[in-house]
Amino acid sequence: MATAGKVIKCKAAVAWEAAKPLKIEQVEVAPPQAMEVRVKILFTSLCHTDVYFWEAKGQTPMFPRIFGHEAGGIVESVGEGVTEVAPGDHVLPVFTGECKECPHCKSAESNMCDLLRINTDRGVMIGDGKSRFSIDGKPIYHFVGTSTFSEYTVMHVGCVAKINPEAPLDKVCVLSCGISTGLGASINVAKPPKGSTVAIFGLGAVGLAAAEGARIAGASRIIGVDLNASRFEEARKFGCTEFVNPKDHSKPVQEVLADMTNGGVDRSVECTGNVNAMIQAFECVHDGWGVAVLVGVPHKDAEFKTHPMNFLNERTLKGTFFGNFKPRTDLPNVVEMYMKKELEVEKFLTHSVPFSEINKAFDLMAKGEGIRCIIRMEN
Amino acid sequence: MATAGKVIKCKAAVAWEAAKPLKIEQVEVAPPQAMEVRVKILFTSLCHTDVYFWEAKGQTPMFPRIFGHEAGGIVESVGEGVTEVAPGDHVLPVFTGECKECPHCKSAESNMCDLLRINTDRGVMIGDGKSRFSIDGKPIYHFVGTSTFSEYTVMHVGCVAKINPEAPLDKVCVLSCGISTGLGASINVAKPPKGSTVAIFGLGAVGLAAAEGARIAGASRIIGVDLNASRFEEARKFGCTEFVNPKDHSKPVQEVLADMTNGGVDRSVECTGNVNAMIQAFECVHDGWGVAVLVGVPHKDAEFKTHPMNFLNERTLKGTFFGNFKPRTDLPNVVEMYMKKELEVEKFLTHSVPFSEINKAFDLMAKGEGIRCIIRMEN
Ligand SMILES: NC(=O)c1ccc[n+]([C@@H]2O[C@H](COP(=O)([O-])OP(=O)(O)OC[C@H]3O[C@@H](n4cnc5c(N)ncnc54)[C@H](O)[C@@H]3O)[C@@H](O)[C@H]2O)c1
Ligand SMILES: NC(=O)c1ccc[n+]([C@@H]2O[C@H](COP(=O)([O-])OP(=O)(O)OC[C@H]3O[C@@H](n4cnc5c(N)ncnc54)[C@H](O)[C@@H]3O)[C@@H](O)[C@H]2O)c1
Ligand SMILES: [Zn+2]
Ligand SMILES: [Zn+2]
Ligand SMILES: [Zn+2]
Ligand SMILES: [Zn+2]
Repeated sequence: MATAGKVIKCKAAVAWEAAKPLKIEQVEVAPPQAMEVRVKILFTSLCHTDVYFWEAKGQTPMFPRIFGHEAGGIVESVGEGVTEVAPGDHVLPVFTGECKECPHCKSAESNMCDLLRINTDRGVMIGDGKSRFSIDGKPIYHFVGTSTFSEYTVMHVGCVAKINPEAPLDKVCVLSCGISTGLGASINVAKPPKGSTVAIFGLGAVGLAAAEGARIAGASRIIGVDLNASRFEEARKFGCTEFVNPKDHSKPVQEVLADMTNGGVDRSVECTGNVNAMIQAFECVHDGWGVAVLVGVPHKDAEFKTHPMNFLNERTLKGTFFGNFKPRTDLPNVVEMYMKKELEVEKFLTHSVPFSEINKAFDLMAKGEGIRCIIRMEN
Repeated sequence: MATAGKVIKCKAAVAWEAAKPLKIEQVEVAPPQAMEVRVKILFTSLCHTDVYFWEAKGQTPMFPRIFGHEAGGIVESVGEGVTEVAPGDHVLPVFTGECKECPHCKSAESNMCDLLRINTDRGVMIGDGKSRFSIDGKPIYHFVGTSTFSEYTVMHVGCVAKINPEAPLDKVCVLSCGISTGLGASINVAKPPKGSTVAIFGLGAVGLAAAEGARIAGASRIIGVDLNASRFEEARKFGCTEFVNPKDHSKPVQEVLADMTNGGVDRSVECTGNVNAMIQAFECVHDGWGVAVLVGVPHKDAEFKTHPMNFLNERTLKGTFFGNFKPRTDLPNVVEMYMKKELEVEKFLTHSVPFSEINKAFDLMAKGEGIRCIIRMEN
């Protein structure tokens, strides 16, 4: 490629300060260094995690920064030592990586790579501690190793999943975070047996994907639980068969669910981030065989409390990170699930805007409208 | 048998009131009714659960009562409808049953039978709500459906495991409660992979059996954790390779274990009943793949508390009841493990007394001496 080894000037949406609209700027993107990949982003979408760190309420602010981590693109050039992808490959950037060398990468059970596990406090490349983005020579921080709100971005090769080039990037781009997280929480972790009953707490993008996963696994009853009844109609498309709004009941929702299911659900998946919902999701599973899976990211002072007898009665509680998918190894197969029409992605895509209107995606999320807004980089 | 269908007069150790020495009395044991079995007990042993309900500190006292639930015996006669065992069969009584019909019995994962699950508040037979023991026509209460501190006892057929008649009852009698509980917690629930590191919290009979289970499963490091260092030497015989006494450290034991194991143990099994140990046992497992198993019976007001992030980092917490063994289906196989010399039982048997001296077994347990005291019914 003509651009390989050179600085690329392109457009990026820069967050100059917390909670202020992003500004489309011309940035310089340095060439990829050893074990790095430079990717032309074609489609990206907005996830709560972007908004959370852009608002910077709970953590040390790091600005100016380029957010974005759900996306699809094409490799433009690769740095020294990169053999697994080549220019022209279609890829999904991933906020958490897979080095393939550490104990986690070598364990069949874990996807929490020691080297490339998500680090929201790092705004630079892991190789040399520097940023690849600059404006007039001044560095702009990266975000979770992906920074996909830019026409070009640089990533560690371990944070890039090479996928089937036939897969439409305007659809599968959303598989790089929330959708896979919810899907994997159900199919990889909760593993509902065929014909079982599953409760899903929280019907945002992640919860709807968890419902979709439960549907794919063959659950016959999928009970959606949300404090916001406006989510229920939409959730039917994702396999939910029944709904419970805790606000409609004077009894604890655990008891409401136990009454509906002859003692408890077989599986539950919590996708709210609220610690009360986490406790409820655990306590609502059937004794003897029930499994509850926590997905939501809790408040830093949250405390999970329950009577230990709830465990002794043979309930299992697990948590998952990115749906237990190993990003490089497993994401290509999630894309294949979509290609084989086992997984429906279109129904998650409720809005679409050109890159120039990226702040509209933030507005939609703030209003809780829709599920995913695709941001088109090229038009 | 000459005694079938008739009342049997025999000796039993009766607890007349809380925490007072048992008295050997002549009792009348009624014939087994429908779905019941009358068993001649040959050997029994004392477990903490007997002592706990005999002390009756935490619960409604129920006296006079015949305690005992770890034992081995021979079927004397059977009631109507009993087809699975016959007079002469060697059996282990079990405090929790298996009806083979309910959802739990039909689930491959559960052993918490709806009909015959342990009920410490019931002092009578489930069939007619009456006791089969009496003295001068006055009923004596049963205990957990077994009451093995009697030369003859009556049990529901679902609480009787038929075993290999070659198995020595003076040894395998201890497999009907604590030893199987600890063993199963390791081999059925924690399932340590070969070469893995396991922490065992609490080195009483249950914890030592859990260590034995970890050894059998092929764990290469087994770290015993106990507040009482006098348990450590003994525990080496059960596979423990290292020890931690939380009292020797100023850091939380979770951190001590993490330092010893490059981030956490692969599996932990809690056998103390203390809620702090339960929390420690959970928090000491490695992120990504660690599994903690709770076995100890907690205080009724205990609260299990942890930061939910500990789950999100891909740790699993489970509890088990009777080591997840289905009593009738699985106990015969545990006996076979002993017969094949895979499981060593002798090292658990530290004392032995004749039935007439049963109160000595209570004294030994009060002093924390030894592991199991076999009570010989016949001499
Ligand atoms: N573990 C991971 O790897 C991972 C990855 C991505 C997202 N997440 C987390 O998953 C969670 C869900 O993400 P999302 O994008 O779907 O969020 P979202 O805000 O779109 O949806 C959350 C839903 O939960 C509902 N809710 C909140 N409190 C509730 C309660 N107490 N009971 C019932 N419903 C309740 C809300 O009404 C909302 O509909 C977040 O906490 C997010 O941080 C985790
Ligand atoms: N789940 C089941 O099916 C089942 C069956 C039988 C027994 N149990 C329970 O298992 C537990 C163990 O039974 P056991 O007979 O071995 O008891 P035990 O009293 O002989 O042994 C318990 C050991 O734990 C140690 N300990 C106590 N608190 C501790 C702490 N905070 N940290 C480290 N060590 C601590 C004690 O020093 C002791 O050595 C009990 O709670 C019992 O009720 C459960
Ligand atoms: Zn790794
Ligand atoms: Zn995300
Ligand atoms: Zn049953
Ligand atoms: Zn016992």
